[in-house]
Amino acid sequence: MKRPVGFMGLGSMGSPMAANILRAEYPLTVYNRSSEKTAPLAQLGARVAPGPRELAHAADVIIAMVTDPEALDALLWGPDGAAAAMDQTKVFINMSTVSPRYTREVSERLAPSGVTFIDAPVSGSKKPAEEGTLIILAGGNRERVTELTPLLETMGKKVIYCGEAGQGSMMKMAMNLLLGIMMEGFTEAISFGVRGGLAEETIVEAIFAGPLSCGLYRFKSALFREKTFPAQFPLKHMCKDLKFLVDTAYETGAPVPVGQTMLHLYRVGVGHEWGDLDFAAIYKVIEHLGGKC
Amino acid sequence: MKRPVGFMGLGSMGSPMAANILRAEYPLTVYNRSSEKTAPLAQLGARVAPGPRELAHAADVIIAMVTDPEALDALLWGPDGAAAAMDQTKVFINMSTVSPRYTREVSERLAPSGVTFIDAPVSGSKKPAEEGTLIILAGGNRERVTELTPLLETMGKKVIYCGEAGQGSMMKMAMNLLLGIMMEGFTEAISFGVRGGLAEETIVEAIFAGPLSCGLYRFKSALFREKTFPAQFPLKHMCKDLKFLVDTAYETGAPVPVGQTMLHLYRVGVGHEWGDLDFAAIYKVIEHLGGKC
Amino acid sequence: MKRPVGFMGLGSMGSPMAANILRAEYPLTVYNRSSEKTAPLAQLGARVAPGPRELAHAADVIIAMVTDPEALDALLWGPDGAAAAMDQTKVFINMSTVSPRYTREVSERLAPSGVTFIDAPVSGSKKPAEEGTLIILAGGNRERVTELTPLLETMGKKVIYCGEAGQGSMMKMAMNLLLGIMMEGFTEAISFGVRGGLAEETIVEAIFAGPLSCGLYRFKSALFREKTFPAQFPLKHMCKDLKFLVDTAYETGAPVPVGQTMLHLYRVGVGHEWGDLDFAAIYKVIEHLGGKC
Amino acid sequence: MKRPVGFMGLGSMGSPMAANILRAEYPLTVYNRSSEKTAPLAQLGARVAPGPRELAHAADVIIAMVTDPEALDALLWGPDGAAAAMDQTKVFINMSTVSPRYTREVSERLAPSGVTFIDAPVSGSKKPAEEGTLIILAGGNRERVTELTPLLETMGKKVIYCGEAGQGSMMKMAMNLLLGIMMEGFTEAISFGVRGGLAEETIVEAIFAGPLSCGLYRFKSALFREKTFPAQFPLKHMCKDLKFLVDTAYETGAPVPVGQTMLHLYRVGVGHEWGDLDFAAIYKVIEHLGGKC
Repeated sequence: MKRPVGFMGLGSMGSPMAANILRAEYPLTVYNRSSEKTAPLAQLGARVAPGPRELAHAADVIIAMVTDPEALDALLWGPDGAAAAMDQTKVFINMSTVSPRYTREVSERLAPSGVTFIDAPVSGSKKPAEEGTLIILAGGNRERVTELTPLLETMGKKVIYCGEAGQGSMMKMAMNLLLGIMMEGFTEAISFGVRGGLAEETIVEAIFAGPLSCGLYRFKSALFREKTFPAQFPLKHMCKDLKFLVDTAYETGAPVPVGQTMLHLYRVGVGHEWGDLDFAAIYKVIEHLGGKC
Repeated sequence: MKRPVGFMGLGSMGSPMAANILRAEYPLTVYNRSSEKTAPLAQLGARVAPGPRELAHAADVIIAMVTDPEALDALLWGPDGAAAAMDQTKVFINMSTVSPRYTREVSERLAPSGVTFIDAPVSGSKKPAEEGTLIILAGGNRERVTELTPLLETMGKKVIYCGEAGQGSMMKMAMNLLLGIMMEGFTEAISFGVRGGLAEETIVEAIFAGPLSCGLYRFKSALFREKTFPAQFPLKHMCKDLKFLVDTAYETGAPVPVGQTMLHLYRVGVGHEWGDLDFAAIYKVIEHLGGKC
Repeated sequence: MKRPVGFMGLGSMGSPMAANILRAEYPLTVYNRSSEKTAPLAQLGARVAPGPRELAHAADVIIAMVTDPEALDALLWGPDGAAAAMDQTKVFINMSTVSPRYTREVSERLAPSGVTFIDAPVSGSKKPAEEGTLIILAGGNRERVTELTPLLETMGKKVIYCGEAGQGSMMKMAMNLLLGIMMEGFTEAISFGVRGGLAEETIVEAIFAGPLSCGLYRFKSALFREKTFPAQFPLKHMCKDLKFLVDTAYETGAPVPVGQTMLHLYRVGVGHEWGDLDFAAIYKVIEHLGGKC
Repeated sequence: MKRPVGFMGLGSMGSPMAANILRAEYPLTVYNRSSEKTAPLAQLGARVAPGPRELAHAADVIIAMVTDPEALDALLWGPDGAAAAMDQTKVFINMSTVSPRYTREVSERLAPSGVTFIDAPVSGSKKPAEEGTLIILAGGNRERVTELTPLLETMGKKVIYCGEAGQGSMMKMAMNLLLGIMMEGFTEAISFGVRGGLAEETIVEAIFAGPLSCGLYRFKSALFREKTFPAQFPLKHMCKDLKFLVDTAYETGAPVPVGQTMLHLYRVGVGHEWGDLDFAAIYKVIEHLGGKC
């Protein structure tokens, strides 16, 4: 028997993730602040809860996928918040990307209720969410994560156990650091080559021919042809995630010389109103920064 | 009938490259400043020339693979230099990594002799050199590059035509920029995660699971287990290449905010006497730079 | 008639500041967490309060000078905290260096009591504190700051009105940003020159001869002779202040490309256990970062 | 009897420097590539030479003050060049700002003639040049520098002996490094404060009140009122000097983490066509780089 699941937060990531849970035939209740997002899922067979608390009552496993701590706070502790309906019979999985520090705060605040708290942010954007090929970075009690793996695997192709609650978020930040650096490196190499007289497509061909080739570059290279950069993962979210990262590095003492340069560069992108474009629009920032001497 | 080839510079890259030419049954003459390096190739069937000029007389296609402009100058214009034996019946292919500016100087200096000059640095280190799977980045007359492709393909799996003489070097620099950034990003992400309490092998697993996975990381991850970093591509050579790159960026006006940060970081590596280790030892530099605040 | 003053926090800055208030013949009550610091001031004529609340009852103007938000929280809202004794007849002046955001939180939390809140961090370290030549950067109601100026001028040579509560801290951060950059620039110029073969004292002479000469460099140059760097303003405090600054820049959108590089460099200093030295020990960090290429 | 002096290069710096030599009643011959610049000095009593060689024949002490190595090469070794007229009875003083490496090349190339070579770049811009208050940074034989000090002091208020030929240029670079950093720091602190709600003139007042106050800031603060930044020392020249500096740092191994960030920022200024403005226009670069996150 599959345990009843509740899913809160039906944005561009949450909607396809919830749909994949439904397809795997879990009984699913959904909730979203603006209710029109619930209709497609209702058509697929989901129950729609009028509020977070009702959702939490109806489900054994409660999942949240929202964009920031404020939204998560509202779902848990706002009017009609879900936390009041959580107890030791239930599991709460936060899949939103938030800082490890905030994750630990949520964990501590929920602890007295006895609810099992799992921290499970995902690596991958819209397309892997639709295809159920996200990488799920899980923190919390190891046995519980193992029990929940079949459910998590409806949304992702791999579940990586990272340690106690908060460590999923820590891993997510490490992945986004590398993601942000690799994207910048791609654009800096292209920009350097083009200013040196090379054709952009030849540079990309040379990258694809060797050991630097990867899924990210194959996927993003299409964006470079048109350079309109429609968002898969918005630049402003990369900026926010790098801010979490740099803050965390201050606490742990981790050296992030390039991470902080990245944050500076993505901030310039937000400052030039490119925050709603894909983070590959870091290209536009780089193009802004040259000069002969 | 295969044209006779001459190969000058039998270091860790040149020796296996020359051996691959031999295996493809080109008549081959070799020269190296310190002559003991020629013995293994002589055993494979190569003729050994007593000096660069004799080699150039004996060959139609003359290849150089050395570590710096000084070594190349010596081979071409030093005592018994090869340049004096070059004319319009011959081709000179420089496969050494040097700056585009120096490449253009060599090209201009050789032009009066009528020799065809090809600029063909390679992407890939010792292992691809042995396996004949280098990426060859070729600059010069397009028809001549096409004619020479069968010879070049004895050493590499792909020949990418980049433009006029000098553009092979330009492409090589763009590739090394991305290589240097990606390597640093890998180590910074690992270092960040480990200071945050994650296991190093779990971080690597998470990278390998998604779109950031690439040949470079799979190949280098082995070095991270032991952290002795035996050189495939020495850190000091990456440092030198990044210096060429930054110098070129001053001339073309290309923005390289992260490229120059990289140069700074790899220089710190040289300053700490890690220049002879693999450039993955940038990890040791990063580890040196943390601190809580 | 001079209004009775209370002074909490008798560290290396607070003690001489309190002594200067006493010398100007204000009735003074002091409090310090570890009570042995109060003895010298008692000898000069101060009353010693057993706790923050008694101090607040005894004084009309209550001053705090501590090292971090935790210490200030404890003084105000801890057991026997001063806040409970504050009302509209009293003034609270926070002279500790804290972030503008925290300052605004303190201001809002105290507002219901009716107390006048003044934010007045100082520019200058131990010696100016002793000599009463600090620069006082005041935020809060302008009339109240004007009324308090005679009292503030017992501690400083100049009071600069910066705007509403929190703006004193904002100005303090701007000053520390410039201070941190100027100190780094001094050491980087010396380090560059010495590696280029110049004598350190000649470099300093050249700086002193022209328009870059300033009190900071004249004062700090003595530290460079011995290079033991006893703390006037500890490096770890500069690090903390730059962290406040960078955090604030994220909120306001201010560009701080060098400020964040500074934070990185001072963090390296803390990581190498130089946090208790003077912040001029950034010299030791810089010396750590070179390398030929 | 004062020795006859020749002065080549009558730009915005050279013209007032030559005028000051004349005022001190040295017999003076001048030369400038575009001859209209010689008229004002002829009116003050200078002889005008038709070319560099004639000037060198007429003078015992030959001074050059030009903007780059190309211009100096032309004066010395171009058609009618001065070098052919130099011998052991003469002194050549290069006051142009060039790299230490180029200075050593000039020194070596002139050595066979027996001429005494002095390297004497100046610290200070147009106004100190007019007022004869430059700082002169002299390299070369110490006795000869001492003998020439009365002549040099007609142009400057202080002569600092820096070491052998080339070390004057080394010192000039160290000074410009600090100059570039201090100017950037001033603008970054102002920009940070203004975005945080402070009034620009209050920030400047706070800087002037304490130990960060210096001639540079007093002089440049006027430029910030109007923000049109007419050039005293053009931004593109600061960019060029920082490029010399970073190149030199690669050779000596000197760490210049902020120096290279400076070069990046001033290059962005050149890229945005602000190269002909005063280098204080780095403010415009900084303003370009913010963004909230």
